[in-house]
Amino acid sequence: MSRPVLILGGGPAGLSAAQALVAAGQQAVVVDKADRLGGAPILSGYAKLVPSGEWARDAIGGMVSRVEASPGVRILRGETVRHFEGEPGAFTATLASGEKLEVGAAILASGFTHFDSVNKPEWGFGTYPDVVTTTQVEQMFSSGKGVRCPSDGRTPKRVAILLCVGSRDRQIGREWCSKICCTVSSNLAMEIREELPDCHVYIYYMDIRTFGLYEDKFYWESQERYKVKYIKARIAEVTSDGQRLIVKGEDTLVKRPITIPFDMVVHAIGMDPNVDNLEIAATFGVKLEKHGHLLKAPTYSAMGGTSRPGVFVAGAATGPETIDDSIAQGQAAAFAAFGVMRGAMPVAAE
Amino acid sequence: MSRPVLILGGGPAGLSAAQALVAAGQQAVVVDKADRLGGAPILSGYAKLVPSGEWARDAIGGMVSRVEASPGVRILRGETVRHFEGEPGAFTATLASGEKLEVGAAILASGFTHFDSVNKPEWGFGTYPDVVTTTQVEQMFSSGKGVRCPSDGRTPKRVAILLCVGSRDRQIGREWCSKICCTVSSNLAMEIREELPDCHVYIYYMDIRTFGLYEDKFYWESQERYKVKYIKARIAEVTSDGQRLIVKGEDTLVKRPITIPFDMVVHAIGMDPNVDNLEIAATFGVKLEKHGHLLKAPTYSAMGGTSRPGVFVAGAATGPETIDDSIAQGQAAAFAAFGVMRGAMPVAAE
Repeated sequence: MSRPVLILGGGPAGLSAAQALVAAGQQAVVVDKADRLGGAPILSGYAKLVPSGEWARDAIGGMVSRVEASPGVRILRGETVRHFEGEPGAFTATLASGEKLEVGAAILASGFTHFDSVNKPEWGFGTYPDVVTTTQVEQMFSSGKGVRCPSDGRTPKRVAILLCVGSRDRQIGREWCSKICCTVSSNLAMEIREELPDCHVYIYYMDIRTFGLYEDKFYWESQERYKVKYIKARIAEVTSDGQRLIVKGEDTLVKRPITIPFDMVVHAIGMDPNVDNLEIAATFGVKLEKHGHLLKAPTYSAMGGTSRPGVFVAGAATGPETIDDSIAQGQAAAFAAFGVMRGAMPVAAE
Repeated sequence: MSRPVLILGGGPAGLSAAQALVAAGQQAVVVDKADRLGGAPILSGYAKLVPSGEWARDAIGGMVSRVEASPGVRILRGETVRHFEGEPGAFTATLASGEKLEVGAAILASGFTHFDSVNKPEWGFGTYPDVVTTTQVEQMFSSGKGVRCPSDGRTPKRVAILLCVGSRDRQIGREWCSKICCTVSSNLAMEIREELPDCHVYIYYMDIRTFGLYEDKFYWESQERYKVKYIKARIAEVTSDGQRLIVKGEDTLVKRPITIPFDMVVHAIGMDPNVDNLEIAATFGVKLEKHGHLLKAPTYSAMGGTSRPGVFVAGAATGPETIDDSIAQGQAAAFAAFGVMRGAMPVAAE
């Protein structure tokens, strides 16, 4: 069959879907609103990925290169889909440019949007320059400049990482857990300690969710080998005494207030639904779950189904997700789409 | 190409791999040591699965039925692989029966082994009949008999679920987190409360790891709607006063000893490496990671690789895994194997 599969989004899930389709001899069209592929790990300049420890620019950049070099994949950068009509096997996607694409199936690999820390103003982001996000620390590493206080470029002696910024927080309408921030933060803490052996690193947490094999590889290792300190706390506010940042809160293990000074405070920001999800859902005629992520059907009969036959979903578009699982889901959705192309589902007559 | 793909294990990962291969027109052979397919959810009689809420016998049983009805899949029950030789595209698997299978690639979807609670004797399993495991509670639900104390068949008024039994425990050589027990336990607690509205249910935990969208769907819901009580504690021992079970430990939030009586104590048992992993690794010539799970290669270039080209891995064989992710990984590994069959990797001359 000659129609390609439409893939919306060129991050880890979309790239893996494209790689998988090409390997099966199935053509694909990747549409990404950004002017380059790679999704969050590339566009946001992630450093070393968990759990592999490979640099994002090598690991995800390598996926980008392979997809870009594939004759079976057409790539449309800086492009969006405006209309999507038809039936499994025979859809028509109308792009913002006006071009119409005849495709057989679609995979929504449209990812997430980083939580914007200005929505948690009492924790100091936007007020104090040395309150930064995990993404900014990733960029400090990936740029090769190292961890420095933005205010004056000095090397921090004391760093606090605050978990669950924009996650597990009903007050600001983010009830979900962002799944991977605990592990990413443990890893970043170790990298800070590696670069700056004299720097003390504290992690403020509600629960440490280094699930599966991440437990000893990241959580235990960060404590035992890197001497990262973990404080179970409710954080009240981040202020400044004019010289240093002050993190105030309650240590929930000893049940008393704690006030500790730091040079740098890092928000471990969560994963919001993609800001475009309402538009994506309307365009593709698929449902959202209650928080605004794309609704994923149960997986037992076909992986990555949405509420619309022939339209599949993979990765963080469905909710906070790891890169590894996004890649697996991208390949799984590719296989489901491939099944449609081979007539595994009812295909409307053309 | 006429050679099939060998799939070792007929649980969720192996079944999804088989389904995916068939959808792509690729033949498969599923080899399972058990006399029926379905893996842990079927063989251990799981009840309603997280997160979908579907019964295991319907959801996973449906996968079994579809695979069993597929002309492209040969199923060998009660069978094992003794030797595995050759190169990608041209392997020979020798079965215990002596039969030789010519296959093009292999997917190790050999799963895990439930932790045996007798290895944590101070927590009462094996000593007191009303100390049971999550698997036994699943069976109480799936059998339709409901939750009853094994000692005398009475309806429990107070149930304690102890998390991390056989997980995150260096003393007994299980350093990993079993990933899904927190969510499964929250779900079981709600089901107990649904069946027995007068029964009080407590969950003893170190950290609650209901990651991603499981946070409010399971953790918050269990507290707010079902009034399940969570106690952060270190458990010392489970004993009996002759009438009821006594859970002794330290409440780590209030820093004091707690001693609470229960009618039933449930061990949320972890996921051990498959007891056969040493043999599987030797037979297939693949490496184990340090805990004894099958070693998974980084995912960026090909999903589910092992240390041996042409041999892939999916699901809980690589470490504790959810059913959803096992299914995605099964499909992803299927696609990787399919790529080998199409010559995407170097194929040895026959």
